[in-house]
Amino acid sequence: MVVDDVADPIPGPMHSLVRVVACGICGSDLHFVHHGEAMVTLSAEAGGGGSLDFGRDIIMGHEFVAEVLEHGPDTPGPKPGTLVVSIPIVFPTLPPVPENASSNAYSNEFNGGYAELMRLFTPLLLPVPNGLPAHQAALTEPMAVGIHAVAKSGIVPGETAVVHGCGPVGLAVIAALRLVGIETIIAADFSPARRALAALLGAHIVCDPAVDDVMDVWQREASATSTLVQFDAIGVPGSLNRAMKRAPRASRILVVGVCMQPDAITPIWGINKELSLQFVLGYTPEEFTAALGHLAEGRIDGAPMITATVSLDEVPKAFEDLANPDRHVKIMVTPNG
Amino acid sequence: MVVDDVADPIPGPMHSLVRVVACGICGSDLHFVHHGEAMVTLSAEAGGGGSLDFGRDIIMGHEFVAEVLEHGPDTPGPKPGTLVVSIPIVFPTLPPVPENASSNAYSNEFNGGYAELMRLFTPLLLPVPNGLPAHQAALTEPMAVGIHAVAKSGIVPGETAVVHGCGPVGLAVIAALRLVGIETIIAADFSPARRALAALLGAHIVCDPAVDDVMDVWQREASATSTLVQFDAIGVPGSLNRAMKRAPRASRILVVGVCMQPDAITPIWGINKELSLQFVLGYTPEEFTAALGHLAEGRIDGAPMITATVSLDEVPKAFEDLANPDRHVKIMVTPNG
Repeated sequence: MVVDDVADPIPGPMHSLVRVVACGICGSDLHFVHHGEAMVTLSAEAGGGGSLDFGRDIIMGHEFVAEVLEHGPDTPGPKPGTLVVSIPIVFPTLPPVPENASSNAYSNEFNGGYAELMRLFTPLLLPVPNGLPAHQAALTEPMAVGIHAVAKSGIVPGETAVVHGCGPVGLAVIAALRLVGIETIIAADFSPARRALAALLGAHIVCDPAVDDVMDVWQREASATSTLVQFDAIGVPGSLNRAMKRAPRASRILVVGVCMQPDAITPIWGINKELSLQFVLGYTPEEFTAALGHLAEGRIDGAPMITATVSLDEVPKAFEDLANPDRHVKIMVTPNG
Repeated sequence: MVVDDVADPIPGPMHSLVRVVACGICGSDLHFVHHGEAMVTLSAEAGGGGSLDFGRDIIMGHEFVAEVLEHGPDTPGPKPGTLVVSIPIVFPTLPPVPENASSNAYSNEFNGGYAELMRLFTPLLLPVPNGLPAHQAALTEPMAVGIHAVAKSGIVPGETAVVHGCGPVGLAVIAALRLVGIETIIAADFSPARRALAALLGAHIVCDPAVDDVMDVWQREASATSTLVQFDAIGVPGSLNRAMKRAPRASRILVVGVCMQPDAITPIWGINKELSLQFVLGYTPEEFTAALGHLAEGRIDGAPMITATVSLDEVPKAFEDLANPDRHVKIMVTPNG
């Protein structure tokens, strides 16, 4: 990872030039730095589209908020100075992908948000409403991840949610669970700081796995009166199998944490208990727009998740700092100071 | 595995004494002989109920058809001589379990169907209708497994099914897919005999994985016009991961084959493609009853699946023979000759 000067992007038709105000550092970026090539190779093996040339520059950063500078030829768009966010990539799980769309996440062609300037696909620009502060608007993307995972789970009020892991993804899931009216949300994380945030974002019970197994807590507090949906937002080898082991019969597990390595599961646990595992990724454009609305209207208060703001030069150091889950949750990069 | 004399069962209240006419040998029994203790230990670790004393007799056989001999005290039931089948176990995934119910599958207390006599729970007895031959009635249980798996999949006409493995479970899935009107069923097995049976039971396309990858066949024949549901009826390490690798985006995989060992999957394939894995086991009492009706009314012709009939003394040899998938599919044990 290097910080360097590159040529300014020039917006063509249907594209806009924007100045980045802030861009959150995502856990996927941390993975990508270490395992990027392996990730792309694995995806390609399984029919995942997209190619990436690791001999060329890749400017990361997909949780951005930016200010409109100008639009390409014959391209109407929000007036210069407007604060905007945009879905950074139209997930191929959710066709149709608009022609000419930019992908600002992990691309050789388009800058991500760890850059002063970006070229975005104009039809996808969303003006930030209601005076929402820019740094909070940059939380739209991770919050959309939580909203999508909860929607895919099909969880309904009366069911209990257990959230394993309270990093940004787990916290977004907790916020989204509150939005759909879940009345018992039990969240677990080893970090006291992350547990405190889990409670702020809406978890009803938080527990420290070093002291109290979250599934024991569920058993004690909620198993008699409700069915369970588990959200695995840990994403390390073994976490899915642990969720399967303690899962009650006929329950579902949402896999939202990204585990890069092959991982062992115990199929007979799945079979004996007729478990359902739903893997999830990304969000729809509608969910992204909804996330922005929830932040702007104050239905989600993401502000406490932002634990630091850094310049472009400080990004490599910030990546290191994020390894300490007790100091940081979401670090904002401000490429233009 | 031994063949020996044991005391005759005596029916108490709510129980009936029956004479076994035939009992199919199930793949689970083959597993159980080699891995029974490990299976029970693994299940117990993950909260699966039930205990089993491996120091005592366990008489296997849960695909039985029998003739009523007599009922316990104050127990009304079908008249002696009636040919009956019964759900062998009320799966705890599907409460409530009737009080006093017998479990005739893997029990220290109740004989399974590899015995001359059994004690069954009277309210669960189903008279065999419509003159259905006894040996075909013994296919009720495996056919119910297929009906359940297809119901859990939520597959609807217009979707395509790929069935990996055409042993008894895969064949039952194929028959059940036809019953719900699936118009493209693609089935794969290395065995020519099993492929022929797959076609007889309703597969529209059968393929030999040694010659033509089933997912290439799907890609060629059906991917342009329909979504896909895969049924993994192989149940060996690696089969689930292979299904995940070739699965199209946002598709679902039903895990119906029982893999006993821990098994490696590649979570990032699941995540990138938002796959759904649904593990399935057993059936509801309603599905069991429906399976009997389909056999009796000729909507499923199971007769070609029965490849041999053996006496009790020949059961150990039959277990060995079943290792050869080209000679046998379903072997019927006839304990009373």
